[in-house]
Amino acid sequence: MEGDPPLQLRVFDLNCWAIRYLSKRRQERVGLIGDMLQREGFDLALLQEVWSEQDYSDLKAKLGGCYPFSHYFRSGVIGSGLCVFSRFPILDTLLYQYSLNGYPYMLQHGDWFCGKSVGLVIIKISGIVFNVYITHLHAEYCREKDAYLPHRLVQAWELAQFIRHTSKAADVVLLGGDLNMHPEDVGIRLLRGWTGLRDAFAEATRFEVSGKEGGTGSWGHTQSPPTHPSAWSQGCEDGCTLVPNNCFTIKTELLPFPLGIRIDYILYKAISSFTVTCEKLKTTTGTVPGRDIPLSDHEAVMATLHIRRQGQAGGAASGTAEPALADMVTEARLEVAVGLRAAQRQRYSTGRLAVLALLLLVLQVVAGLGALGGLVAGQPFPKLSFSLLAFLGIGVFLLATGLYLFHTIEVKMLQGTEEQMRMVLRALQERP
Amino acid sequence: MEGDPPLQLRVFDLNCWAIRYLSKRRQERVGLIGDMLQREGFDLALLQEVWSEQDYSDLKAKLGGCYPFSHYFRSGVIGSGLCVFSRFPILDTLLYQYSLNGYPYMLQHGDWFCGKSVGLVIIKISGIVFNVYITHLHAEYCREKDAYLPHRLVQAWELAQFIRHTSKAADVVLLGGDLNMHPEDVGIRLLRGWTGLRDAFAEATRFEVSGKEGGTGSWGHTQSPPTHPSAWSQGCEDGCTLVPNNCFTIKTELLPFPLGIRIDYILYKAISSFTVTCEKLKTTTGTVPGRDIPLSDHEAVMATLHIRRQGQAGGAASGTAEPALADMVTEARLEVAVGLRAAQRQRYSTGRLAVLALLLLVLQVVAGLGALGGLVAGQPFPKLSFSLLAFLGIGVFLLATGLYLFHTIEVKMLQGTEEQMRMVLRALQERP
Repeated sequence: MEGDPPLQLRVFDLNCWAIRYLSKRRQERVGLIGDMLQREGFDLALLQEVWSEQDYSDLKAKLGGCYPFSHYFRSGVIGSGLCVFSRFPILDTLLYQYSLNGYPYMLQHGDWFCGKSVGLVIIKISGIVFNVYITHLHAEYCREKDAYLPHRLVQAWELAQFIRHTSKAADVVLLGGDLNMHPEDVGIRLLRGWTGLRDAFAEATRFEVSGKEGGTGSWGHTQSPPTHPSAWSQGCEDGCTLVPNNCFTIKTELLPFPLGIRIDYILYKAISSFTVTCEKLKTTTGTVPGRDIPLSDHEAVMATLHIRRQGQAGGAASGTAEPALADMVTEARLEVAVGLRAAQRQRYSTGRLAVLALLLLVLQVVAGLGALGGLVAGQPFPKLSFSLLAFLGIGVFLLATGLYLFHTIEVKMLQGTEEQMRMVLRALQERP
Repeated sequence: MEGDPPLQLRVFDLNCWAIRYLSKRRQERVGLIGDMLQREGFDLALLQEVWSEQDYSDLKAKLGGCYPFSHYFRSGVIGSGLCVFSRFPILDTLLYQYSLNGYPYMLQHGDWFCGKSVGLVIIKISGIVFNVYITHLHAEYCREKDAYLPHRLVQAWELAQFIRHTSKAADVVLLGGDLNMHPEDVGIRLLRGWTGLRDAFAEATRFEVSGKEGGTGSWGHTQSPPTHPSAWSQGCEDGCTLVPNNCFTIKTELLPFPLGIRIDYILYKAISSFTVTCEKLKTTTGTVPGRDIPLSDHEAVMATLHIRRQGQAGGAASGTAEPALADMVTEARLEVAVGLRAAQRQRYSTGRLAVLALLLLVLQVVAGLGALGGLVAGQPFPKLSFSLLAFLGIGVFLLATGLYLFHTIEVKMLQGTEEQMRMVLRALQERP
């Protein structure tokens, strides 16, 4: 068994940026993504931001031949945007929706409406059970003052916990998606440390940039010389998945990062008696050959993995020493605590506003009754201002109450996560 | 190993009915529940409807000696109400919030605000890994015309899926909680069939009713003679956990069931090389000795389980033949489809209402501009009615839009569940 040739698995991951009415040249790009998947014939394609079920259906119809199995994860108002295309039968699926995901009133950011989730599909190839996870975490709109950091950390924590609890019977775990975190961010270090997942980019034996800017026809074939991976993980141009050269990215957002940023990942680990290595990692750059646009505002990540059977169980291979893990959990917990205090302040403010609006309404009722009782009979009753004020009072009361309830949920979930982290820290410290 | 004496585990399960400001004599009853847990010294206590964190803290302070480990699951506006007290260390926890849980505007039912969930705690006793699940599903307010059946079925399905995916490394699985389903209901048959869990009541070697009505001092000790379990599962008086004799139950709701109903369960199964048997099952009846009230409006379920190591792996022991399982999934899927159509109708109605309100506002803007432009200069402009109508229009628009978004989520989740069920059915049918 040990001498068997390794199983080769080619995985494709892309944030497709396919938002109906908002994303530029969406249908054309979805068509191009389908063409590429068809041409390249990957084993697994993990797509995010496929918000329109029609786009998914179109892709499914086009890819039925080479990817006969697929799954679309539904959640939230718009959907989760997550879907998986597979050459191998999908045996089972499960969706876990993150408990926190931004604010419904931040309409310009819209994350709340997406029902951000992690999807799990289970596939079996040559008797090897793969737990394949796909996710998309809350976006980072301002790195200097990132109001969503506590929410994203709760998501990263829930993602790690979900993977740990659901992957115990798997042989190999794969995670692909747009994590909206730079490689050195606490959330991704926590995720990797707590699950033992390895970063395909950092582990890759060979790294290739597929394509040159301007679609010179070499797209998908050009290869840069093999380079030691550690050089890339220091913020090198290659490996970045959100780059200024992409015509759809917002250049001002990438100003502090002239080479781009890496926020899309393929992570993996073997759980039982298998080893996984990343033989090759590629990203796209530039436009699609013969076209003036790239596939998406993100670059695709393509990994070629080799899975070998080992003589003995590989164990969970956490890869992170416990003191380092404890440090990460402590760091994350502090950020969650900061978010908790902010949420408590907002809950207090909205609660106070609701009480004030209620008081205003009570005063109005008293004044109204007084007017009816003829106490102010000598003066004309200001009906218009009275009605306007009453409606304003009702509106403010309802809105403030809704927000108070929302922030109460936020406080509860942040408290719950903080407590879970504290429990893990205690367990880590108690271990001999 | 096989000859070792079995591990005995005493499990307590109770819906505590501890809603702040609403439940009668709440604090007194929580105190009595604490007294009983302290006196009886169970290994595990699974409590539902502990909505107040203060009540949990009080219980924790009181039970610290005999149950040194505990966990409270936070979710939703009010909390999940779920907590676990354990004699053995809790190694890890995970919370899964159900994607559907009633309607926020059904204030009189209030389930939506509770963030109904399933909580998982992992404990290890003598080297045996227990995955202990605790849950509380959506209440049934009208059995004849149960508007919440599709939501409860989605919850039962998600519960089953969550247990299946997270319990693969466990030796023994336990589930306790208020499932709000009668033993013959499709939801519980589906849950049992799809997870392989066994009903402690139906499997119990001995069934005892602990206590007599009126608190004659024998509470907790009286034993009815051993009876064959199959006799009880036919809707017999004993085993019921919501009974007319309980002074807190609403008698009119139980009119069709003069003996009461059984909706609180302890379910179990062994996964790896273990067997579990239920040696004894007890429920409470009547008032607490020396007091004029029972512990809760529900009766407590107390099971004594014996866990034995087997020579060979027991396997998943699903216990349900695949054709029967396929029938259950089909039955559940039909109910989910009914719910889906209702949700689609409501989405359509609320969407139409939002559009109408928007049209009204547009008309008002036009009229207002007309008045400003002096088109109706000859007539006095009806400011009051105009403002009232505008506010009404805005209010209806916002409300209808909110409801539209809510029903969109509902439709998505029902579709997602239906598709998952279809996938399972296909897999069941394809199996040789």
